[in-house]
Amino acid sequence: MNNAQRSYLDSIANLDLLRQTRTGMPEVIYAESKTSTQTIAIAERILQHNQRVLVSRPNTETVEAILTRFNQETIIRGTADRIVTIAAANSRTPDIGGHVGIIAAGTSDLPAADEAAAICTELGCTVHRVTDVGVAGLHRLFEPLRQLINIPVDVIIVAAGMDGALPSVVTGLVDVPVIGLPTAVGYGYGGQGMAAMGTMLQSCAPGISIVNIDNGIGAGAVAARIARKMHDARTRGTE
Amino acid sequence: MNNAQRSYLDSIANLDLLRQTRTGMPEVIYAESKTSTQTIAIAERILQHNQRVLVSRPNTETVEAILTRFNQETIIRGTADRIVTIAAANSRTPDIGGHVGIIAAGTSDLPAADEAAAICTELGCTVHRVTDVGVAGLHRLFEPLRQLINIPVDVIIVAAGMDGALPSVVTGLVDVPVIGLPTAVGYGYGGQGMAAMGTMLQSCAPGISIVNIDNGIGAGAVAARIARKMHDARTRGTE
Amino acid sequence: MNNAQRSYLDSIANLDLLRQTRTGMPEVIYAESKTSTQTIAIAERILQHNQRVLVSRPNTETVEAILTRFNQETIIRGTADRIVTIAAANSRTPDIGGHVGIIAAGTSDLPAADEAAAICTELGCTVHRVTDVGVAGLHRLFEPLRQLINIPVDVIIVAAGMDGALPSVVTGLVDVPVIGLPTAVGYGYGGQGMAAMGTMLQSCAPGISIVNIDNGIGAGAVAARIARKMHDARTRGTE
Amino acid sequence: MNNAQRSYLDSIANLDLLRQTRTGMPEVIYAESKTSTQTIAIAERILQHNQRVLVSRPNTETVEAILTRFNQETIIRGTADRIVTIAAANSRTPDIGGHVGIIAAGTSDLPAADEAAAICTELGCTVHRVTDVGVAGLHRLFEPLRQLINIPVDVIIVAAGMDGALPSVVTGLVDVPVIGLPTAVGYGYGGQGMAAMGTMLQSCAPGISIVNIDNGIGAGAVAARIARKMHDARTRGTE
Amino acid sequence: MNNAQRSYLDSIANLDLLRQTRTGMPEVIYAESKTSTQTIAIAERILQHNQRVLVSRPNTETVEAILTRFNQETIIRGTADRIVTIAAANSRTPDIGGHVGIIAAGTSDLPAADEAAAICTELGCTVHRVTDVGVAGLHRLFEPLRQLINIPVDVIIVAAGMDGALPSVVTGLVDVPVIGLPTAVGYGYGGQGMAAMGTMLQSCAPGISIVNIDNGIGAGAVAARIARKMHDARTRGTE
Amino acid sequence: MNNAQRSYLDSIANLDLLRQTRTGMPEVIYAESKTSTQTIAIAERILQHNQRVLVSRPNTETVEAILTRFNQETIIRGTADRIVTIAAANSRTPDIGGHVGIIAAGTSDLPAADEAAAICTELGCTVHRVTDVGVAGLHRLFEPLRQLINIPVDVIIVAAGMDGALPSVVTGLVDVPVIGLPTAVGYGYGGQGMAAMGTMLQSCAPGISIVNIDNGIGAGAVAARIARKMHDARTRGTE
Amino acid sequence: MNNAQRSYLDSIANLDLLRQTRTGMPEVIYAESKTSTQTIAIAERILQHNQRVLVSRPNTETVEAILTRFNQETIIRGTADRIVTIAAANSRTPDIGGHVGIIAAGTSDLPAADEAAAICTELGCTVHRVTDVGVAGLHRLFEPLRQLINIPVDVIIVAAGMDGALPSVVTGLVDVPVIGLPTAVGYGYGGQGMAAMGTMLQSCAPGISIVNIDNGIGAGAVAARIARKMHDARTRGTE
Amino acid sequence: MNNAQRSYLDSIANLDLLRQTRTGMPEVIYAESKTSTQTIAIAERILQHNQRVLVSRPNTETVEAILTRFNQETIIRGTADRIVTIAAANSRTPDIGGHVGIIAAGTSDLPAADEAAAICTELGCTVHRVTDVGVAGLHRLFEPLRQLINIPVDVIIVAAGMDGALPSVVTGLVDVPVIGLPTAVGYGYGGQGMAAMGTMLQSCAPGISIVNIDNGIGAGAVAARIARKMHDARTRGTE
Repeated sequence: MNNAQRSYLDSIANLDLLRQTRTGMPEVIYAESKTSTQTIAIAERILQHNQRVLVSRPNTETVEAILTRFNQETIIRGTADRIVTIAAANSRTPDIGGHVGIIAAGTSDLPAADEAAAICTELGCTVHRVTDVGVAGLHRLFEPLRQLINIPVDVIIVAAGMDGALPSVVTGLVDVPVIGLPTAVGYGYGGQGMAAMGTMLQSCAPGISIVNIDNGIGAGAVAARIARKMHDARTRGTE
Repeated sequence: MNNAQRSYLDSIANLDLLRQTRTGMPEVIYAESKTSTQTIAIAERILQHNQRVLVSRPNTETVEAILTRFNQETIIRGTADRIVTIAAANSRTPDIGGHVGIIAAGTSDLPAADEAAAICTELGCTVHRVTDVGVAGLHRLFEPLRQLINIPVDVIIVAAGMDGALPSVVTGLVDVPVIGLPTAVGYGYGGQGMAAMGTMLQSCAPGISIVNIDNGIGAGAVAARIARKMHDARTRGTE
Repeated sequence: MNNAQRSYLDSIANLDLLRQTRTGMPEVIYAESKTSTQTIAIAERILQHNQRVLVSRPNTETVEAILTRFNQETIIRGTADRIVTIAAANSRTPDIGGHVGIIAAGTSDLPAADEAAAICTELGCTVHRVTDVGVAGLHRLFEPLRQLINIPVDVIIVAAGMDGALPSVVTGLVDVPVIGLPTAVGYGYGGQGMAAMGTMLQSCAPGISIVNIDNGIGAGAVAARIARKMHDARTRGTE
Repeated sequence: MNNAQRSYLDSIANLDLLRQTRTGMPEVIYAESKTSTQTIAIAERILQHNQRVLVSRPNTETVEAILTRFNQETIIRGTADRIVTIAAANSRTPDIGGHVGIIAAGTSDLPAADEAAAICTELGCTVHRVTDVGVAGLHRLFEPLRQLINIPVDVIIVAAGMDGALPSVVTGLVDVPVIGLPTAVGYGYGGQGMAAMGTMLQSCAPGISIVNIDNGIGAGAVAARIARKMHDARTRGTE
Repeated sequence: MNNAQRSYLDSIANLDLLRQTRTGMPEVIYAESKTSTQTIAIAERILQHNQRVLVSRPNTETVEAILTRFNQETIIRGTADRIVTIAAANSRTPDIGGHVGIIAAGTSDLPAADEAAAICTELGCTVHRVTDVGVAGLHRLFEPLRQLINIPVDVIIVAAGMDGALPSVVTGLVDVPVIGLPTAVGYGYGGQGMAAMGTMLQSCAPGISIVNIDNGIGAGAVAARIARKMHDARTRGTE
Repeated sequence: MNNAQRSYLDSIANLDLLRQTRTGMPEVIYAESKTSTQTIAIAERILQHNQRVLVSRPNTETVEAILTRFNQETIIRGTADRIVTIAAANSRTPDIGGHVGIIAAGTSDLPAADEAAAICTELGCTVHRVTDVGVAGLHRLFEPLRQLINIPVDVIIVAAGMDGALPSVVTGLVDVPVIGLPTAVGYGYGGQGMAAMGTMLQSCAPGISIVNIDNGIGAGAVAARIARKMHDARTRGTE
Repeated sequence: MNNAQRSYLDSIANLDLLRQTRTGMPEVIYAESKTSTQTIAIAERILQHNQRVLVSRPNTETVEAILTRFNQETIIRGTADRIVTIAAANSRTPDIGGHVGIIAAGTSDLPAADEAAAICTELGCTVHRVTDVGVAGLHRLFEPLRQLINIPVDVIIVAAGMDGALPSVVTGLVDVPVIGLPTAVGYGYGGQGMAAMGTMLQSCAPGISIVNIDNGIGAGAVAARIARKMHDARTRGTE
Repeated sequence: MNNAQRSYLDSIANLDLLRQTRTGMPEVIYAESKTSTQTIAIAERILQHNQRVLVSRPNTETVEAILTRFNQETIIRGTADRIVTIAAANSRTPDIGGHVGIIAAGTSDLPAADEAAAICTELGCTVHRVTDVGVAGLHRLFEPLRQLINIPVDVIIVAAGMDGALPSVVTGLVDVPVIGLPTAVGYGYGGQGMAAMGTMLQSCAPGISIVNIDNGIGAGAVAARIARKMHDARTRGTE
């Protein structure tokens, strides 16, 4: 290996320097294919250096194990325990982000919305939840949407399965960026979120982008990027 | 061939007797894979026994040939000439059907809507058209929809491509049967009508059924069946 | 929020006014992803205001729990308990709809047909069931079909899996609207109802529309819309 | 290369010896991606050793070139010139096969059926054609089917696009083997023959096998194998 | 209902008369979605009128129940119990068919091959099995194939998963009809039999047709049709 | 129609009031399925009320017609004329947005990137273009990316076809939101943008969302929403 | 059977003679669809003639049975026991191959990488493993990659799921052949390895070929072929 | 930008240093979407610095233009002009690679094979072509394959469409690495190369890897990597 190569490789450690973010993504343990023992062990290791850790898709046994092992910590559980937060006592999320609205079209969309909410919270954003509106009862949408706009939120995530029509409707009514989060709800043709994703990708409403089916974590990360930058812009003032 | 077989086969001619409809489907020539000469020849043959004939998907040359050859007949042309009606002078459509509403979400959906309208008209229904509403401008939908309900129409066909969201919205607002007609509009994932069809099949709105992509003729046939039976029920009075 | 906005939002509550239906969709609990305890709790809450509630896709344990908890109510169970109706003693379905024929091609298609039947019944229609005909034994179809036509029924739902050919055959023999209900029966290429749905969408028989695979509830809702409007037309007499 | 290898490779020339057929497949030139000049040249070369050659999917220009160049030969043209036979004057097809029935559901299915017929004819079978029946008019099927059975035919090819239902119907009515030949007719979901193929593969009728979409040549080859073996069995008498 | 209709419907009972087969398909109980109690009950009912019945895809519990309940009958079990035959003591299969060769590419293809063998046997054919050859060891194919040809068999079924190449190879070496039976073996792209089916449908070898993935029953029914007709031709002698 | 309905419908005109954006989407004429005459006519009509109009996917003839007819206007043409801007002399885009970075992985991705750039420009954003980097030559990416971050841009659109890997790489290096714009570049498996879209949806990099294949207009609309809100936040100062 | 046939068939045993490899593929038992008893029995039979045997995809119970029954043998277990090697005491792998680098993008890709490693080891290659790099942290890739190149390895296998971007990145940095091994990691659109495979097939990096999703055994076999030939070339010297 | 960043970015230029190849990929102009004028201009520019350039997928007009403009250069044309080499007079390909065998299953596979051959030649390998063997006539394969093995070649590319069976057969007979190159030949189910690719990915033959459909350039690049490394190993002698 010659000098040029060595100098190149030495500098690799600085690869992240184009980023200026103060805090990065929170630690997430994907518990789905792990035993409860493995998950607990990983969580313990992370908590030696971090105040907080997220556990994604734990099964019932793993949730029980978390509650038992971390009985000194604060445990925050989402719908159907899709995502669980283990927070050291007195630990706090950073206060460096803006405001994120998260709308779930129906109760089946709550777990994906919970993932997004947990990520946004850990990344320092204030989350405003709206649940169980839906196109069938469009009139249930307007009042909570008005409240989100009045806050105002910097970005809105809309989780929807089945026909996935709600994100387009929201995009048509507001002027903040909207992130469509298709969920694996539905069966037959277009089931498992495929129709919902198609609807969002074919939407005529200008101003919507999407993440993959059931990728609540990804949706949360996008929203938090936007909201944190917005928060920065507001606090740093005029250009 | 024994007697039982013979008797069976003799009776085949009566196979249609479960039907009580006074008039059947109009004659339709699928011109797409035919030369203009072939199409004209078939049209001439049909017009020897029928007063009217429809030509589906003729190309420009065929349309010219129709206008030239049948200059004594009335020629009714749809958007982009997707469907053309050749009607003998003084010929009339039957007056035996009810009222059909046909909504096209955008201008690209007009050809499919035209197919449906032509079939309904030939089957004796009165057609009420609404064009170029669409989810992006939902407020453009309400007034014409109100008018359709006031007529009242017996059934509504909604043609939509892209995200195909309009039929669900209509179904949620009215209580007449709605037929979703997905159109091959859109590109990328879910393009060519696949997303539109998926949205309609996954719709949460109770009361919508669909036909295949761009099958305006099929949509018209379903609507006319409903509207004619409805007309019969009204004119025959109490059960 | 200015006045125009406020006045707009105030009026949202009237959004359903284009509907003139006397009764809406019955309450359906989708039990598939719920524990028996959750399902029972929701059913109890609904029955405080409603006389009747449907439970869709309960598992064995949930069915047992229903039978135990609601032993004062009438429990109506479908094939393989795909849908279960809990009806308060002395409660009745409304008598405001027409007649719906529901044909199941084979025994595997019965659960989907049961869903459709339950919805139609709750929406006030009289349901006429035909089971286990099928293309292989076409001759088993004619007699029951003749009986449906003689009633007469206002609309026919045909549930079929595998090659899904039966709805087209029925459509070709009658002149009432036919709703194809593909079922997730079959394996290999076109399995899980995909071939059945394709057959129905490609059908040459004019007068058939479809709902999604295994969407018996949707098929029932469409049929009931048609039958109720037909009933209205008959009882209100001449146009 | 050692002796064992050499001896092995020497014997490769005998690889076909398990076949006992007197004549093999006819020569077929796939003209689709060739210029008319190339096609003519190949045809000339084949006709130096063969009496007859088939040209599949020639365009208009190639057909013209064939008619001009081979004006001393007999030219047999199929529907839309999907397949063209060039036969030396006085040449004959072999008389070594049985009887093949070929049914086309509609006029769009004729080109694929023509391919099958040409192959069967060249392989020495007698072909019996039935055209333009179809499920919509099932009663048009029975009489010609009865005639095929009375001949009797040894095997029946049924070409069908759209919903592809006809082959199953035929299989349910006869007891000779049926070969389903799906054609690339139809659009939207299941278009291009995909729904037709799915219907045939999901058919409940026992006794049907299929070839690929538009593979008339393959269907003809299968049918001819069956019919020739059947012919052999009849002429060689008792087992 | 008028006279024409009545006479038509009266004759429906004769619908099967175009068939001249002496015995029809054996009874098959699809046990997959049934409890062992249900399967036993259906088997008992069938055995009141039939000497033999097939049970397809029973689970372990059902097989145990069959062995216990029908301990006076002969039980024939296939690989992994994919299909089980319950035969009354002293009952025999008919002796009216020809000879069917059934080749399984690998051990994973045996269950599908067993289904085909059971159907052929019940339909009176003599079945000749070859197992576990496969393209990787092509040399293992030649000797057994030679034996099949020397019998001679009237038709060969070749069951293969993964790349599904064996049926084409066999078709290229013999001149009897070959039925490709793709099996749901394989994973990743083209898994679950999709690649195997594609290979067979795209095969350049003239003389192969196929049935759906894992449809051993269908493959057996096609082969038996051919073999029985061949047997008839041989025993009835010269045309 | 009763009072409640009337009041509701009257207020519909205010439906857009939840939006506070000063200017909406620019007018875009989708020229693909229009004749040059039609496109010119529509452009003339729009320019009576608007200063500027975009023409998407005009063919060569239409571009010629635009250049001839609007020779007094400023014509801005994108790569391969995917999008053409017609701007009245002295007209200006609004100065109300932030900064948008648009990266095209290769020259084939330029037309989609042009669409995005045109929309952003019309919506008042300053656009910074980077072209023809790409994963194969990753080192070509770093310098321009550093420049974008130094501006700083508020959001980055990355257009990529083939394997679509570039957007993930960018997302991993910066902390502004990234919008993946898959393009229909590539053939074989995953061609037409399907693989590119899959890569972006499956990306492990947190902070990326996407629009549909070749939907440059949609990507531009999302980016402009973000950049305009960011601009607002900066100019309105502290929260 | 005539002499030519016999001579041909006699020589079939020599069919493998074009191969000059000293040792063939190791024996692999696919345990997935076998009981632990069956797997043990097959392993015992193989170990009567072989020193070593691989067991692919055993379940927990089978692993236990292997550990108990073969407690005199050396048992080598991969991640999550995807593949287990049973080696007779004192048995050795051949020393006839070159050097293979195997990189796993993340921990989920380890089982597939283990399969490849086991095959390469049994085929006599020296395996060099790199685990848990990944595009998100590209800087973790460079140092281990430099080490692989310094060895030097003859070929590199890169296992990756999700967006499957790593193999392309590696291919762009080195000049040895790279084999992409997509893994069934990921959900939603492009899940189950489909997006990873698409990315690799669409890669712009020249010098990458792939095997099927999760086919670690196939990847190992390809790599070992290359490495063994490379080893031969080095040891046999100048051409 | 701080020092660490600057030092990092400065070193990026050395990113390719892990590669030790003496010559890189040849220049290839993708002419498909370019005018003949554009292609000529790019070729001229490349030839100012390079001796040779490849033009992929030129149309007839572009080929004519190349022949006219570069009449002083050597023009090497592949089948159907899929790829054209423009070589300066007296220019030579490097002599640094090994031997590559390239087999085309049929004449339709020649263009893809030509692409692979051109790339290998430009990268300094000696190419040995075998054309128009194919599974249907397997015996035509053995002699040329024996010749390739006797050379010996370092790697074999096998181009095949339709059922794509040939690469597996070759892999089973030799012990050099085999690269499957599926071609977009075939129609119906599995057409456009999808079945060929599936067959190769599902192959049981150990030692085959593949590139994307019609990606002859990619296949050539992989083969050349292997052959050049093999050549290096041979010429550098013992490890």
